[in-house]
Formats: sequence, structure tokens, C-alpha cells
Amino acid sequence: MLEKVYPPFIFNEFDRKNKFGLFMDVEKVIYSGVTKFQRIDIFETKAFGKVFTLDGVPMTCELDEFVYHEMISHVPLFLHENPKKVLVIGGGDGGTVREVLKHPSIEKVIMCELDEEVVEATKKYLPNLSYELNNPKVHLVFEDGSKFIKNFNNEFDVIIIDSTDPTEGGGGALYTESFYQDCFKALTENGVFTAQTEEPFIEKEWMIRAYKRISSVFNVAKLYLGFVPEYTPGTWSWTFASKNIDPIKDFNPEKVRNFDKELKYYNEEMHVASFALPNFVKKMIKDI
Amino acid sequence: MLEKVYPPFIFNEFDRKNKFGLFMDVEKVIYSGVTKFQRIDIFETKAFGKVFTLDGVPMTCELDEFVYHEMISHVPLFLHENPKKVLVIGGGDGGTVREVLKHPSIEKVIMCELDEEVVEATKKYLPNLSYELNNPKVHLVFEDGSKFIKNFNNEFDVIIIDSTDPTEGGGGALYTESFYQDCFKALTENGVFTAQTEEPFIEKEWMIRAYKRISSVFNVAKLYLGFVPEYTPGTWSWTFASKNIDPIKDFNPEKVRNFDKELKYYNEEMHVASFALPNFVKKMIKDI
Repeated sequence: MLEKVYPPFIFNEFDRKNKFGLFMDVEKVIYSGVTKFQRIDIFETKAFGKVFTLDGVPMTCELDEFVYHEMISHVPLFLHENPKKVLVIGGGDGGTVREVLKHPSIEKVIMCELDEEVVEATKKYLPNLSYELNNPKVHLVFEDGSKFIKNFNNEFDVIIIDSTDPTEGGGGALYTESFYQDCFKALTENGVFTAQTEEPFIEKEWMIRAYKRISSVFNVAKLYLGFVPEYTPGTWSWTFASKNIDPIKDFNPEKVRNFDKELKYYNEEMHVASFALPNFVKKMIKDI
Repeated sequence: MLEKVYPPFIFNEFDRKNKFGLFMDVEKVIYSGVTKFQRIDIFETKAFGKVFTLDGVPMTCELDEFVYHEMISHVPLFLHENPKKVLVIGGGDGGTVREVLKHPSIEKVIMCELDEEVVEATKKYLPNLSYELNNPKVHLVFEDGSKFIKNFNNEFDVIIIDSTDPTEGGGGALYTESFYQDCFKALTENGVFTAQTEEPFIEKEWMIRAYKRISSVFNVAKLYLGFVPEYTPGTWSWTFASKNIDPIKDFNPEKVRNFDKELKYYNEEMHVASFALPNFVKKMIKDI
């Protein structure tokens, strides 16, 4: 899948298909391995620090991992009055769990990741991301999240879908309407949900499709955006959804101001600002 | 300067220095020329449409030029009660002038661009950007903006600095404190100023430096951000400045809602949202 062009540069199939991409100079290959599901590589780069790739596609990197992980976690968490039980689907690098556990009310986080070897590699090579995966509040499950979710009914205060990109064609089980319905069912009445939903400039069809499917299942569904350099073209979207919580009307900025953990990206203004959408994005998701 | 590696890809010196960059598959070279100041290339690409480069660095492209041009123009323009006289320094592709002239109160736009051949090339090959450069309200001047600005005192309602990147070392005459002082002098009492000020992830030193210098000259100076895929790493900053106008307190969203021209990015929520800054950016510009 990943061609042997590194060093010096990372290229991948996604880049070739879209005929553009980010290149990064690989200074050192830290780890390479092939699992039952995919190829894992961890590179050292100058501009992005350590970069973790699956099948050659950057999943996370030291330069900006905090943006993605803070935005997928704190946006829903600050919208729940007293989040105790969280389900993370995907999220093998541990960055999302690390952010979730900054909230002192959390009692239990189940992280359901398909590929156990991803967790092994990140525990070993990316400790700044994965260090909370050994926290006793965290329960790791290695199976297909789209099957695992079917076990629950009215169970979780927060569900976070921290998945890889949809694949060509079907897009994968974590992007289907029936999966989102299972998430709805697994969520408590005041529960909150967030999924990563791709980007609006190039591969916009997947963003629109994911948003549309989530909207058709949940009473409230709102797209929000952030700056993530490692995910070309540098703009990323997530979709917040719930049964009755509105991400703006029900947001209490005071809670964020009084938060005593250090955050590098998220703050009370960014919470609100990230739900403001450029006209071309509004149009894209209105026309569906 | 630009190495002959295209087709298939654009690489440039900036990319090599930072050891990362955006690559774009060049489907066709539309125009190449060397002027007294720089090398111009216009490429056809799949993902970004037509791309205009100076010394191999993308300046503007069809995919997302509207983001940069709307954000550098409408943010200051909507903050002036009745803008009539505008100075654009740089802006050779014409995109900024196109946006400025959407405001019906405008009587005169002076565009001061260093390189006449840039304007000739964009008039010929990028008509969607440059079509307003022939508008009788527009006066083109081809000289060094840092010298031209010295001719004016209390003259312009709006000044927009649409410059190329600072160069290694000095950074160029359009990034000096004395240039910003000349802009301050050339601005009317209720005048508004915006400059492009680079990005906060990789080459952040220039963003901090430009912001710092502008802040030291103007009474009000506020950084704002937007999504610009073509400018790696995809996040871009501008700095708004004025003698007394605040970009949030003095903003009237009603004016934007009643605007009858089509805008693809800018709207009243994006105006406010773009001034919200992530914690790491706040910290960067506070520590100066």
C-alpha cells in the first residue's frame, strides 16, 4: 500500500488518488509493522515531529495532535452536565482518552479499537499520547466498534467516534446510518455524541454523507471545524449530535473558564467559533 | 529558484527549508515567465484548479482563493461605516480588488503592486480573479509599496496589505515597523487596516513578529484566522488594526446580513469566529 519512497518523503495512495498531499521529510523510521488489518509506520519528521501512519496515511503527529484530540473530546464533554461513562470507538493512539480523563467526573472509559497492535505500538512509541491508556478507569476492548455498540442501551453519557477515513466504496461500518442508530440507542437521554467527519474542500462528499446520516438519526446534529495541518488540506470537521442538547444554547462558558487542566487549543471562544461555518460549507450541508 | 521537477509535482525552496509542503500534481503548465523581480508560473492542477506561483510558492488558486480574498477584504470593509477610498498594497492577482468593489460605497481603489508583469499574467490567465482590475474606479500603480505609502497623510478609509511572504533575514519592506507607521499616517481617523500575517504552526516567528510590530503602532490590533488549504499548513492569519475601531464591539452583523453580493466564505458568524484564537496562539502573541 505504502510505496517505498521514504526516506525522504511520505506519499500514500490517498495522495495519489487526489493528486495532491502533504509531504514530510522522514528523518528516521522509528517503527514499521504489518498487522492483520493494516500497515503501521512511525516516522520522525522535522516539521511534524513523530508521525504515526496507517497504510501511509498520517493519523496523528506531535505538531498538532492536540487540536484533533481536544476538539473531538472537549466539545461534547463540556456539553454534558456530569459525564461519567464514555465510549470511544477507534482512538488507538490514546490521545482522545487522555483528553477525556482531564474531566474529573469521568468514572469509566471504554475504548473499542479494532487493532490491538495499534495500541501496542502507540504505548511503546508515542507515550505523550497513550499514557492514560493504563489508567484503571480505562477498559480496552479490541473488536469491531460497529458490532460492539450493539451491546448497549441507554448506557453512555458520551460517545466519541475517533475513526480512520472511510474506505473507497462503502466507507466502512463506522459511517453507516445503522451504526449511528446504534449509537443513538446506546446514549443516555442527555448523552452527547461526536464523530470525526472528514473535510469540506477536497473529499467533501464524505463529510456531507456522514453529516447527513448523523442528522437523519439524531434530533440535534451540528458540524464544527478546526485547524489540523496534518490532515490535508488542513481543515477538519467533526459532527456533534445529541437527543436534546444544543451545542451553543446549552453551552456554559463558565465551566470552561474554571477548568483547571491545561488545554492548548480549546477554550470557550473556540467552542462557539468552531460551530460558525463558512457560506460554502453551510450550502454544502443544507442542500442535502 | 524553482527546480525543474514539474511535472508531475510542484516543490519549492520554502518546502525544502521546512522539510514539508503541499505537493500538487501539475497537469499542464499554462504560463511560465521570469520578470525583473521573480519567476511566475501558472499551472493547471487536479485538486486546486489553476495555481499561480511566484518563485514556485503558490500565491493563489481556484480551489480556495475566495477564502483569502474575502477574509482580507470584508473583515476591514464591514468595520468602516462608509468606506470610499481604499489602498491595496500587493494583490497583483486582482482577487482583493474584486472583493473590495463588491461594496457599493467604494469610489476609488489604488492598487500598488511591485511587478507589472504579475498583473499582465493574471489579467490574461486568471480572469475570474482579475476582472475588476479594468474597472474605472481602480488605479494601478507599479512601484514599491513601502515607498508609495509615504505620499499620503490621512487619506485612506481602508488599507489592505496583500503581500508575498517575508523573505529570509530582513523580511522585506512590507513587514517593518516604519512601514506600519506610514500606513497609520496614511489612514483616516476612522480608517481600518488589514495585513496578511503568515501562520501559527510552522513559520510562526513571522506571524508573531508582524503582529507585534502592528500592535506597537496601532491603538487596536487583533489577529484573526481562516482556513486556506493552498497555504500550508492550511491555517492562515491576518491582523486587523485601526486607530479606534474594535473588530468585535464595533461590528454590525446586520450590515453583513443585508449585503446583496454573493460571498462564499465570509458571513457575520465567521467575522466574529475568526477572531477567536486557540490557546496556543493566544499564548504566542501574549508572550511578546
